[in-house]
Amino acid sequence: MRMKVGIVQQAFSGKQAENISQLVEAIRNCAAEGAVLVVLPELHNTLYFCQREDVSCFDFAETIPGPSTELFGKLARELGVILVLSLFEKRTAGLYHNTAVVLEADGSIVGYYRKMHIPDDPGYYEKFYFTPGDCGFEPIATSVGRLGILVCWDQWFPEAARLMALKGAEMLVYPTAIGWEISDGTDEQARQLDAWLTIQRAHAIANGLPLVAVNRCGYEPDLSTHTGGIRFWGNSFATGVQGEILFRMGEEIDSCVVDIDLTRTEQIRRWWPFFRDRRTDAYSELTQRYLKDG
Amino acid sequence: MRMKVGIVQQAFSGKQAENISQLVEAIRNCAAEGAVLVVLPELHNTLYFCQREDVSCFDFAETIPGPSTELFGKLARELGVILVLSLFEKRTAGLYHNTAVVLEADGSIVGYYRKMHIPDDPGYYEKFYFTPGDCGFEPIATSVGRLGILVCWDQWFPEAARLMALKGAEMLVYPTAIGWEISDGTDEQARQLDAWLTIQRAHAIANGLPLVAVNRCGYEPDLSTHTGGIRFWGNSFATGVQGEILFRMGEEIDSCVVDIDLTRTEQIRRWWPFFRDRRTDAYSELTQRYLKDG
Repeated sequence: MRMKVGIVQQAFSGKQAENISQLVEAIRNCAAEGAVLVVLPELHNTLYFCQREDVSCFDFAETIPGPSTELFGKLARELGVILVLSLFEKRTAGLYHNTAVVLEADGSIVGYYRKMHIPDDPGYYEKFYFTPGDCGFEPIATSVGRLGILVCWDQWFPEAARLMALKGAEMLVYPTAIGWEISDGTDEQARQLDAWLTIQRAHAIANGLPLVAVNRCGYEPDLSTHTGGIRFWGNSFATGVQGEILFRMGEEIDSCVVDIDLTRTEQIRRWWPFFRDRRTDAYSELTQRYLKDG
Repeated sequence: MRMKVGIVQQAFSGKQAENISQLVEAIRNCAAEGAVLVVLPELHNTLYFCQREDVSCFDFAETIPGPSTELFGKLARELGVILVLSLFEKRTAGLYHNTAVVLEADGSIVGYYRKMHIPDDPGYYEKFYFTPGDCGFEPIATSVGRLGILVCWDQWFPEAARLMALKGAEMLVYPTAIGWEISDGTDEQARQLDAWLTIQRAHAIANGLPLVAVNRCGYEPDLSTHTGGIRFWGNSFATGVQGEILFRMGEEIDSCVVDIDLTRTEQIRRWWPFFRDRRTDAYSELTQRYLKDG
């Protein structure tokens, strides 16, 4: 039980056709190297438009199914690979989501995940664009296993990874768009990148699951000129069930296929039986916002 | 708002008086270096007796208050430091806990924490000795802040750290007894140690809290001779609120004072506002054992 996972780390421009054609080429390369599953970065069709609040950016949104699931569905069927897309979903007028879609190897939509935790800080104005997901944390069953797909900001919340694991996810997958604000100092940049790696590695450890995080790379200016723009830090990576790094990219455009051993979950959970010992009788207050003042 | 925290990493023998006298000396050294709080490793008065199941080991248990809180209470008062003890608590006949006790700088008992997650695997037969804690995850308010004291196996459960944070903990503190089984290979040893560091660093990150983990060190034989014994791996450490390592010991006996900046929690939680964005409406199933089969 091994799975070859293709990781496509890509930089994006304002030219959507060009972005998509680069993604298609990278997916083809991954498939040629034997990938059965290929994961793309967050919101991969466009620039990371959330650097500013601009109603015209809602034009980038599309329905699911829609043009992207059609286009990538054909590719999935042609290559016989499962694809994890990350789309700006238009559900109806005034209702948009940041949605990951899983296409089966026959090109059909097998499931989707609407990003549950929505960030909002300078350069990442996502609360303007995305309604928080209302479908909870449900793994998506595919022909190669149950995928716990989460998106970017979700990666900072242990609760999300845990719920996916409790619902039978066999791998955690994080399409991501994260980078440095151009004015961050070198020390702060190092701490941020290391924190990002560390907390996701910890989700793998806590849940005895392999994990794949696929990030954007490249610089994108802030078109509002309020900030210096974002340098997406790449560093897409895969970990084993003990959080050990199996593969990690640099900051440049890259794609690769990582071979993940799915039998290690059974093995590590026998030795580190966290699921046996969770104090489910004592966790009910995790649903509270804060508890200090009663 | 800074706090000088003394970390006492110690190896232990079957001679309790000797163990305690070494601890007292190390605590004095930390106090002399300006520590206001000193943390000891898990079950620091004795050998790690849980390597075997032996009813005679219940003789090591003591009441709280009892001899250890008396002895260390005098020391706390004399030195004007807060102490975090880790004791084998006898609550009544047939009811024992693995209990951390916090002594104020005046020597009084200000609070205790009964270990909630109890491990049980070869060499760590804790379920035989310790009844799981029934007091939940409650920070202990001291004159230097609210301490989220957790113990060893708790460190693998993000739920525990989160609940302490939600209840206003200002620092996470983990007295610990963890090491390598003597037959573990070098690669496995490295993965285990790194996983231990990583998951605790992630608790600091997820909650925007500094964290101190204080481990035993040294080799202790398995008196039942079923295993090769445990080499406690030391590596006691402190992290800042981004999970950055502030200080880390080696595998030998050591003590030191770490200066922790408590103002960084406010700062980092403004930039990484995870508490704002937790999906408390979607976490209720964290109280379940498993969810895949309905």
